[in-house]
Amino acid sequence: MPLPGDLADLAAEVRNWGRWGDDDELGCGNLLDDASARRGRDSIRTGRRVDLAVDLRADGVQVGQPARRYNPILTHTSINERDPFAPGIWEGTDDLVTMSTCAGTHLDALCHISYEGSLYNGYPSGSITPLAGASKLGAEKLPPIATRGVLLDVARAKGVEGLDEIDQGYAITGEDLDEAAELAGVEVQPGDVVCVRTGEMRHYLADPREPFVPVQDTSRWRYAVGTGESKLPGLSVHSIRWLREHDVAGAVNDTYAYEVFPPSMPDWSDCLAVHMIQVRDMGLIQGQNWNLEELSVACAERGSGAFLLVAAPEPLVGAASTPVAPVAVL
Amino acid sequence: MPLPGDLADLAAEVRNWGRWGDDDELGCGNLLDDASARRGRDSIRTGRRVDLAVDLRADGVQVGQPARRYNPILTHTSINERDPFAPGIWEGTDDLVTMSTCAGTHLDALCHISYEGSLYNGYPSGSITPLAGASKLGAEKLPPIATRGVLLDVARAKGVEGLDEIDQGYAITGEDLDEAAELAGVEVQPGDVVCVRTGEMRHYLADPREPFVPVQDTSRWRYAVGTGESKLPGLSVHSIRWLREHDVAGAVNDTYAYEVFPPSMPDWSDCLAVHMIQVRDMGLIQGQNWNLEELSVACAERGSGAFLLVAAPEPLVGAASTPVAPVAVL
Amino acid sequence: MPLPGDLADLAAEVRNWGRWGDDDELGCGNLLDDASARRGRDSIRTGRRVDLAVDLRADGVQVGQPARRYNPILTHTSINERDPFAPGIWEGTDDLVTMSTCAGTHLDALCHISYEGSLYNGYPSGSITPLAGASKLGAEKLPPIATRGVLLDVARAKGVEGLDEIDQGYAITGEDLDEAAELAGVEVQPGDVVCVRTGEMRHYLADPREPFVPVQDTSRWRYAVGTGESKLPGLSVHSIRWLREHDVAGAVNDTYAYEVFPPSMPDWSDCLAVHMIQVRDMGLIQGQNWNLEELSVACAERGSGAFLLVAAPEPLVGAASTPVAPVAVL
Amino acid sequence: MPLPGDLADLAAEVRNWGRWGDDDELGCGNLLDDASARRGRDSIRTGRRVDLAVDLRADGVQVGQPARRYNPILTHTSINERDPFAPGIWEGTDDLVTMSTCAGTHLDALCHISYEGSLYNGYPSGSITPLAGASKLGAEKLPPIATRGVLLDVARAKGVEGLDEIDQGYAITGEDLDEAAELAGVEVQPGDVVCVRTGEMRHYLADPREPFVPVQDTSRWRYAVGTGESKLPGLSVHSIRWLREHDVAGAVNDTYAYEVFPPSMPDWSDCLAVHMIQVRDMGLIQGQNWNLEELSVACAERGSGAFLLVAAPEPLVGAASTPVAPVAVL
Repeated sequence: MPLPGDLADLAAEVRNWGRWGDDDELGCGNLLDDASARRGRDSIRTGRRVDLAVDLRADGVQVGQPARRYNPILTHTSINERDPFAPGIWEGTDDLVTMSTCAGTHLDALCHISYEGSLYNGYPSGSITPLAGASKLGAEKLPPIATRGVLLDVARAKGVEGLDEIDQGYAITGEDLDEAAELAGVEVQPGDVVCVRTGEMRHYLADPREPFVPVQDTSRWRYAVGTGESKLPGLSVHSIRWLREHDVAGAVNDTYAYEVFPPSMPDWSDCLAVHMIQVRDMGLIQGQNWNLEELSVACAERGSGAFLLVAAPEPLVGAASTPVAPVAVL
Repeated sequence: MPLPGDLADLAAEVRNWGRWGDDDELGCGNLLDDASARRGRDSIRTGRRVDLAVDLRADGVQVGQPARRYNPILTHTSINERDPFAPGIWEGTDDLVTMSTCAGTHLDALCHISYEGSLYNGYPSGSITPLAGASKLGAEKLPPIATRGVLLDVARAKGVEGLDEIDQGYAITGEDLDEAAELAGVEVQPGDVVCVRTGEMRHYLADPREPFVPVQDTSRWRYAVGTGESKLPGLSVHSIRWLREHDVAGAVNDTYAYEVFPPSMPDWSDCLAVHMIQVRDMGLIQGQNWNLEELSVACAERGSGAFLLVAAPEPLVGAASTPVAPVAVL
Repeated sequence: MPLPGDLADLAAEVRNWGRWGDDDELGCGNLLDDASARRGRDSIRTGRRVDLAVDLRADGVQVGQPARRYNPILTHTSINERDPFAPGIWEGTDDLVTMSTCAGTHLDALCHISYEGSLYNGYPSGSITPLAGASKLGAEKLPPIATRGVLLDVARAKGVEGLDEIDQGYAITGEDLDEAAELAGVEVQPGDVVCVRTGEMRHYLADPREPFVPVQDTSRWRYAVGTGESKLPGLSVHSIRWLREHDVAGAVNDTYAYEVFPPSMPDWSDCLAVHMIQVRDMGLIQGQNWNLEELSVACAERGSGAFLLVAAPEPLVGAASTPVAPVAVL
Repeated sequence: MPLPGDLADLAAEVRNWGRWGDDDELGCGNLLDDASARRGRDSIRTGRRVDLAVDLRADGVQVGQPARRYNPILTHTSINERDPFAPGIWEGTDDLVTMSTCAGTHLDALCHISYEGSLYNGYPSGSITPLAGASKLGAEKLPPIATRGVLLDVARAKGVEGLDEIDQGYAITGEDLDEAAELAGVEVQPGDVVCVRTGEMRHYLADPREPFVPVQDTSRWRYAVGTGESKLPGLSVHSIRWLREHDVAGAVNDTYAYEVFPPSMPDWSDCLAVHMIQVRDMGLIQGQNWNLEELSVACAERGSGAFLLVAAPEPLVGAASTPVAPVAVL
């Protein structure tokens, strides 16, 4: 089962393979340069810092899907204790964490998604193995991002708190991004990273985190899995060309799945098509579970959606995605 | 066994308890403000980004000390596979990581070190428990850092590749920091974060990472444990007053242990005294295993040790330290 | 809040502290001897082996209680791969597992439960620390069990499939155990291990294990948490004296919580009183999540509830409970 | 590169594919039956239990080979604490463990080793995936062993403490097994499990476990990796036919690698040939890191190498090997 014809054409059109050399592992990360960093710098006005990460916690964004994703399990290898090698009166606490690399705010490595046997730039999908991890396109190859960030606040542009108010499975298009860019007052340029806001994060944040709350029918369940027929708003294949034409280095949003769900084709042959084309064909840096709520208010107040975005992914060697704690400097 | 008299006096002198309120959990993080962020912004010239993180890898900085610290163990919960809930032709790779939170480039949470039953700001050390983790001063309370960073390149100021060339257990003093600040051409101000370079990181980076290399007698063993009698250069108690007087928000360096080792007192009652006083009394943000090698060259070339430093720690709820991927924008 | 008066008296009555010496860490494990092993041997008739362990699986008995217990997370460090040190044409698969030690069929170590600052035999509860684990009474101190096992099939004796048919919070008493021993046709002797069957396990086993089944309202949810007001049948404080009088080495059952839930006192000051008195005062070897369903049928068929029980706990140094894969030889 | 000719012939000769049906996943586990269990029972004389497991500990048998195998990492999710759902005066301790499934005394699942694309009984090696684990021949398919065990004490038969006294790379042959069976005074029969003793375990047990002992040049390093050119004694291809002719259900020994190392062919094309042929072709249950030291003395004292062996592997669904705590009843 190949990618449906229209999507195959789209994939071919936006594909960046070879654009930065046959051995390139940076993808659209190549678009991050000194100029885009200076553009970010020049967007800073007050110096206000806005934290875009969600807490990494045992009752975090993962709610037990079949994909075997785990919220952080934090335990301590010492608590107010000394090791025998360093006596004295100090007492120290050390931790151990076990977590899915996509358990909170994260970036996808370019090896995260494949189809038809290939990763980005034509690397074979077999270059990832259990023993060695991703020998190509692992998370340690992602560049630290320090560039101009642009908030594309689609929800605010539509006048809603969240796109789910319009349609629980709202599919964001290029026109929506144009509309949001106009609200931001910014002309998106090559090397920018766009932060696309759907408003979904408000569901996750609304959860009261009762210790023994039932898992289902909670806001964080809704955030991860959606309501009813598991519909979730997100980016659609109709936004891909826009991202390629503007040559952004990356696109992130405030949802669990990044893209709209369910897919549009009856046979679901286009399932995760946005991931497939953006990560595997374009080599776009893609991020999920970014908290854009405070940023939305701050950008609205200052009347501009541009800022310095710094998001340096954890350089986990061989990983397919990796935690990131992004910060916007306004 | 209390802290030796002189150190007890020093601790009292530099202590910040109550300075930002009785319920403060930010410590010197309070010194990070819009002004310091703008000062960071104004230090950017070319927009060059320098990555200050070491790779997180199975053969990383941890070499098996008794303190039960573990390099990242990365495995995959899927490799080029689909979960049953999202069919189609896509294939995805997901990871799981188990690691000590201090396994690579990290920041210490303010709960990391206690003595005499107290954490920073007088919180009882008992506020950390195995079940709940750190209910006070956990890593999620650390602020994202976006401020002016200043490289205090002590090694370069001394004309050596690493301070171990002078003395394997070189103890950095306030005078050394003055000397390095002069080389940096910067007057350190409140809210700055200083990056103190010893040159030790070159040992870790020199390691060839052969798959079956013996653990001992390697460069990375030397980086973590030192040579001979386990001597390691680092910050000493004679640098604490300097950091307090300049009211820096944080201090990080390029060593495993942060402070000089072994301690100076014959009974080792001052063991980890720098940690004790800086973290528990001052509430200073402290970081280790930062890679300052490229930054050292870049700052020397541009003739300035000031830059925008962005270091947003992973918000691991209840943790005592946490990974960070810092980036300097020059 | 001390243990309620009656229970405090009972605890004092059944307490085994000092019985086997002041430095004893075996507790009722001391009752396992050559004679009890031979008694087990002499119970074997056909040689049929009945497996009493439940599978250790990602969708196992843990369903997300607040106590931070995790089903096994199994990943692979290699799949059909070779390490560089051992070439050739072989291909091997290696695994890594992360799990709560009580995630499946398990035995409690004698350090598992404390009250009023003491563990079994008066060891201070502070002898367990995060750095070192349980320095006293850890799981590695549990003896391998090879003794006569006796099935006390309370459910069958009552003529029900499970005690929840009578009362979802059915509290097993000494009289119930007498009745079940009569059904078993066995006079329980010192050093025997009794397997008390409630029938609860049938709920866990009934679960269809659909990959995306909702967590709640499933049979395995019911098994772990109960129905309605979280009622679960189990052993009650009214069975403790019976176990002490018969001087059994251990008692295990087929429930998640071992003892009846909720407790009987309005202020819940007797919560987990069975655990408290049996583990901490008696030093009894106690086990949970044992699958007694096949054993129940087999014993009914042969008309005897006695068999050789072999249950050798994993010697996890310093652990508070540990997996065990018990086998009954009939 | 196929298996060398002689070995390919041997593999074909001993292969058990189809012997117990095309969908068999038990392999030689099929040889375990009521009769062999009764034979085990009849070997019991005094009822003495001998523990054959090594402790599972952070400084266990794994010493950091390239194959990414990890000793147990034990942490605690609570220490003398209560969860909010079950108040009262009890205090409980719960653990979490992360470990390689082969980190201590273990059995190999029949999926552990493949070559030429096949697992035991012709199952494709591709039936193991990161997402699902081993869908065929996983550890949960291993039967609980309760049969006659026979100690084949090759070291004692040779009059040495360990075979390394004769040759650090001593290759055990069928003749050696005959000699040891004679010493045991036992005629090995179908369904027996043989415990082959080399004496290597004494090196592991000799290790003083100093907290900061260097990793290399210790006894446990020697146990795992050998001395000099990494030579290790063990079973050789010249013992395979013996095991097949006697139709044992399983064979275990007291070494890290099970088989002699290094292999005999200059090109190492026979590397791990014993694993390949026994696990993949014969479907033999195979175990490593069994502590046979006390058993050796006990069997010598009683003048018989036969006993009831009970070894019930942890039923880890989908795993390639699994911990087991075996016990011999003499």
